[in-house]
Amino acid sequence: MCQLLGMNCNTPTDIQFSFQGFSRRGGLTDHHADGWGIAFFEHSGVRVFLDDMPSAHSPVAAFVQAYPIKSENVIAHIRKATQGAVNLANVHPFQREMWGRYWIFAHNGNLENFAPPAGRFYQPVGQTDSEAAFCLLLETLRSRFDAMPTLEDFCQVVAEVTATIRQHGIFNFMLSNGDFLLAHCSTKLHYLVRQAPFAEAHLLDEDMSIDFNQVTTPNDRVAVIATLPLTDNETWTAFAEGELMLFRDGLPTTIAVPMPNGRDKMATSG
Amino acid sequence: MCQLLGMNCNTPTDIQFSFQGFSRRGGLTDHHADGWGIAFFEHSGVRVFLDDMPSAHSPVAAFVQAYPIKSENVIAHIRKATQGAVNLANVHPFQREMWGRYWIFAHNGNLENFAPPAGRFYQPVGQTDSEAAFCLLLETLRSRFDAMPTLEDFCQVVAEVTATIRQHGIFNFMLSNGDFLLAHCSTKLHYLVRQAPFAEAHLLDEDMSIDFNQVTTPNDRVAVIATLPLTDNETWTAFAEGELMLFRDGLPTTIAVPMPNGRDKMATSG
Repeated sequence: MCQLLGMNCNTPTDIQFSFQGFSRRGGLTDHHADGWGIAFFEHSGVRVFLDDMPSAHSPVAAFVQAYPIKSENVIAHIRKATQGAVNLANVHPFQREMWGRYWIFAHNGNLENFAPPAGRFYQPVGQTDSEAAFCLLLETLRSRFDAMPTLEDFCQVVAEVTATIRQHGIFNFMLSNGDFLLAHCSTKLHYLVRQAPFAEAHLLDEDMSIDFNQVTTPNDRVAVIATLPLTDNETWTAFAEGELMLFRDGLPTTIAVPMPNGRDKMATSG
Repeated sequence: MCQLLGMNCNTPTDIQFSFQGFSRRGGLTDHHADGWGIAFFEHSGVRVFLDDMPSAHSPVAAFVQAYPIKSENVIAHIRKATQGAVNLANVHPFQREMWGRYWIFAHNGNLENFAPPAGRFYQPVGQTDSEAAFCLLLETLRSRFDAMPTLEDFCQVVAEVTATIRQHGIFNFMLSNGDFLLAHCSTKLHYLVRQAPFAEAHLLDEDMSIDFNQVTTPNDRVAVIATLPLTDNETWTAFAEGELMLFRDGLPTTIAVPMPNGRDKMATSG
């Protein structure tokens, strides 16, 4: 399996503190050592750093930790391979263009007997179940809409496809186009929202603290989403199993996902 | 305008020496200071480093110079903006997936009155003429073929689209899927092939030499393609104006491009 890290903010923010702790789990404090990647949106542009080395020992990861890139939407992933060899084509996050925007996706889990037919618009390059799921998600959206629909319609189709895919196994994922970030929890995902009054945070994976009062302005709002909490002195909220959450400007909202038996989860605000 | 750098080899090779000289042209020895990018294929996987800072002063470029990434196909670009603001979405090279492979493209030139209709499969994210040309190229290929055709058929369609696009202006470009690299010269492009017996090379933009005998094996063959020669003691071959060249395993072959008046350039081997 793998671990996911995401960030969604109302102002461009660097992720160095969270990534510092997260990347140690790639071969140092945990065993997710089969590659890693991180994508930073800057408006509609995106830059993705990928490596098939363990993040704890990767020179690219060391560079990313040291170089502050300010972004409103970030998705990072450390890989423990379940399907697909350890090579660059199988490293998350994956990137595609749809409707003239870039889309970034990363997955934690394992999908069994999952072999969607080759898409007309999107096909996987590597061998992972994860990239196949991303392509199926985009293929369905692109087949239904010729341009970006309303966010409500968009989320509804993502929820539908998610309901289908997760019948194949564990499907924790994050998806972003730079405007918003969607996160789905099959089994394990946590989040917190940092906003005024800011406090000091201390990493779980390393004895390192930051006083967010020193690096923020009063209107900043930053949501951090991670497989497991990254700090030991803040309150992280666990996603419910099966919960799909939309983050915009650092604000989370739960999206209803259809249940296989027809019962919908109620939409609530988080 | 901009400058292009490409590499195509029969064995994974690092591009540090060439990139060292090339990146100085982004704000130090030349004025291409509106961002830069470089894409390294590793088999079907690809990693792209992008920055909207001048390459001569970019920490990401400094990292890429210091970190040897071995690749068989590399495309790099330093930008002097003609169309589209200076931001990440307008930085080359551009990346898309087609037929389950990643494609990388970079352009030097300026296309005027060039506004192809929105594609069904590919749409630009940024505002450059370059990304619009890349999307038109892929759109045409994807519309004609549902899977990768023969290399001959592939090159013929690229040649056709190139013949159309270059009527709009200067269209020097490089395109690769990790298996081969295509380079087209409207106005200015040079290449050389390094193979045994290897010799010492000295950069034009910096007093720096490398003895390729020390870092190669006798069977290595490396083609380097650049807008302007990068070394002052090697023989660079200028592309003919209008020449489209296919590089495979470090070996160049000229592809016939249809002429607007119906006369075809003859195919020759270089």
